Amino acid sequence: MTPNKHGLHCQIVDCTVRDGGLVNNWDFSVEFVQDLYESLNEAGVEYMEIGYKNSPKLLKSDGSEGPWRFLDDAFLRKVIPNKKRTKLSALVDIGRVDEADILPREESMLDLIRVACYARDTEKAVELVKLFHDRGYETTINIMALSNVMDNELNESLALIQDSPVDYVYVVDSYGSLDPDDFRYLIEKFRRTVKNKKLGVHTHNNLQLAFANSLVASQMGVELLDSSVYGMGRAAGNTPTELLLARLNKPEYNVRPVLGMIEKHMLKLREKEEWGYLIPDMVTGMLDEHPRSAMGWRASDKRDRFTEFYDKMTTPETFHK
Amino acid sequence: MTPNKHGLHCQIVDCTVRDGGLVNNWDFSVEFVQDLYESLNEAGVEYMEIGYKNSPKLLKSDGSEGPWRFLDDAFLRKVIPNKKRTKLSALVDIGRVDEADILPREESMLDLIRVACYARDTEKAVELVKLFHDRGYETTINIMALSNVMDNELNESLALIQDSPVDYVYVVDSYGSLDPDDFRYLIEKFRRTVKNKKLGVHTHNNLQLAFANSLVASQMGVELLDSSVYGMGRAAGNTPTELLLARLNKPEYNVRPVLGMIEKHMLKLREKEEWGYLIPDMVTGMLDEHPRSAMGWRASDKRDRFTEFYDKMTTPETFHK
Repeated sequence: MTPNKHGLHCQIVDCTVRDGGLVNNWDFSVEFVQDLYESLNEAGVEYMEIGYKNSPKLLKSDGSEGPWRFLDDAFLRKVIPNKKRTKLSALVDIGRVDEADILPREESMLDLIRVACYARDTEKAVELVKLFHDRGYETTINIMALSNVMDNELNESLALIQDSPVDYVYVVDSYGSLDPDDFRYLIEKFRRTVKNKKLGVHTHNNLQLAFANSLVASQMGVELLDSSVYGMGRAAGNTPTELLLARLNKPEYNVRPVLGMIEKHMLKLREKEEWGYLIPDMVTGMLDEHPRSAMGWRASDKRDRFTEFYDKMTTPETFHK
Repeated sequence: MTPNKHGLHCQIVDCTVRDGGLVNNWDFSVEFVQDLYESLNEAGVEYMEIGYKNSPKLLKSDGSEGPWRFLDDAFLRKVIPNKKRTKLSALVDIGRVDEADILPREESMLDLIRVACYARDTEKAVELVKLFHDRGYETTINIMALSNVMDNELNESLALIQDSPVDYVYVVDSYGSLDPDDFRYLIEKFRRTVKNKKLGVHTHNNLQLAFANSLVASQMGVELLDSSVYGMGRAAGNTPTELLLARLNKPEYNVRPVLGMIEKHMLKLREKEEWGYLIPDMVTGMLDEHPRSAMGWRASDKRDRFTEFYDKMTTPETFHK
């Protein structure tokens, strides 16, 4: 109802292929990714994260995963022969990047490279960022699992980031355990501590708070908001792209093309693959735990035994972080 | 993460049978309702809204609906022979109540009677409240569709309520179009305007904001929070009861029994009946419209044609409020 006066400066990073790939082993057809790119571009979405730019050698690939797991520039050029307004992004993990894979930006399809790391690996993340920055890319550092990081460690991590060439620092709610007050607290802390950097948020929907957390971020002037179409992402998934488009007060945004994408592709995909609000993921969210135990439970024949899962997770001897 | 210091004074009104009945024509078995009562009682939920207390004569019943549509005290006594801590609530609509149906509270199974009305009908709601109050019940007035009420009308409505014997006044987001800022604004306004009344909120999940809106209410000291198990309610449904139990910082609450209820009954029910985050309901939420057009669309053979629905809803000549 209240027009959101904030959100004008926000940009959306759609992570459907990258984070959604964690659900279906990146088994997206070229047609799917092309249709997604067209719909995001028409909708006014600023960035599409089209996969991971890790090296298959360093990640010991068994070859079963789709091509979005190990992006290749020559392949990308065929997938998106006509790049439009929407820029392309890729995520990398610490220790998985082969320097030789990273073209200078002017020869690459990618515009933004994001480095995911735990706070303890910030030094390594900064090294990677320097490499990407020197080759001309926009860069982010996405500090994962913030709900499990002590303040002294986070402060050290942010000090390193402050002195690095990175453009954006991310608040990442890996376990989907944070609420709007938690996001408000972390965003304020990041603003105070890394004054010269822009910010981003990556949310998960375990407690049905992903979109509300993104709205808080938009009101606080956070520059990059991650999302995915129909919320597709690991376990409980992410903030739905269509909700950001529907609600942020940016004249360029248009939700209609993304509704078309949902209609054409996402409904069928959701019948085959599972993500969204599921009770085991809600339980790991409320307990501030990694979703791996919930995902394992859903993959087992006990998938619908919710009280048994809850009892395991709340019994000290069994599941542990 | 941040322990919610607020919420200690909150009470939950579980509306699964009443609002969920709008989904399945109140076709809940006696066993379902008994299991729900047991699980809510064990979970520490303070109120269970077990249906409507309208008169079948005044609502022109065709006899197809389940017994929770027109609650009967003799029947209720058989369903719940041993009432425990959890109190029972019923909703009534303006113009649908037969005074002769309303026993004095000491002879009734019900503790709380809630009157749903539009702002323009507040005078009639106050008349009903006087009747229920005189017969010994706790009472609420639930002003629906607040997002479509002008401030002068709302002020008149609240002035009438201020002078009435009602215990609680509700902020009702009938269209699921309100965000946490909107709730904050309305709750502050209600607090200022009806100083001597306690407050309640009833949310809908069209924009995946129902739980976030309930959290705002709990932090602002709102006394009654409506919810339903697994979110079951008309169209996009309500705040899930299990999320309130998991997140509110009240030592009496225990989410486990409600997870058992979901496991035993709600999963099967959700396969048969439809509620939750669906794109047509998202569209009516973003447009601040009654969900009836989305529900009609989902019941038609065009149910998955989202862009066509969006175009209809955004073309002035077709759908109207």
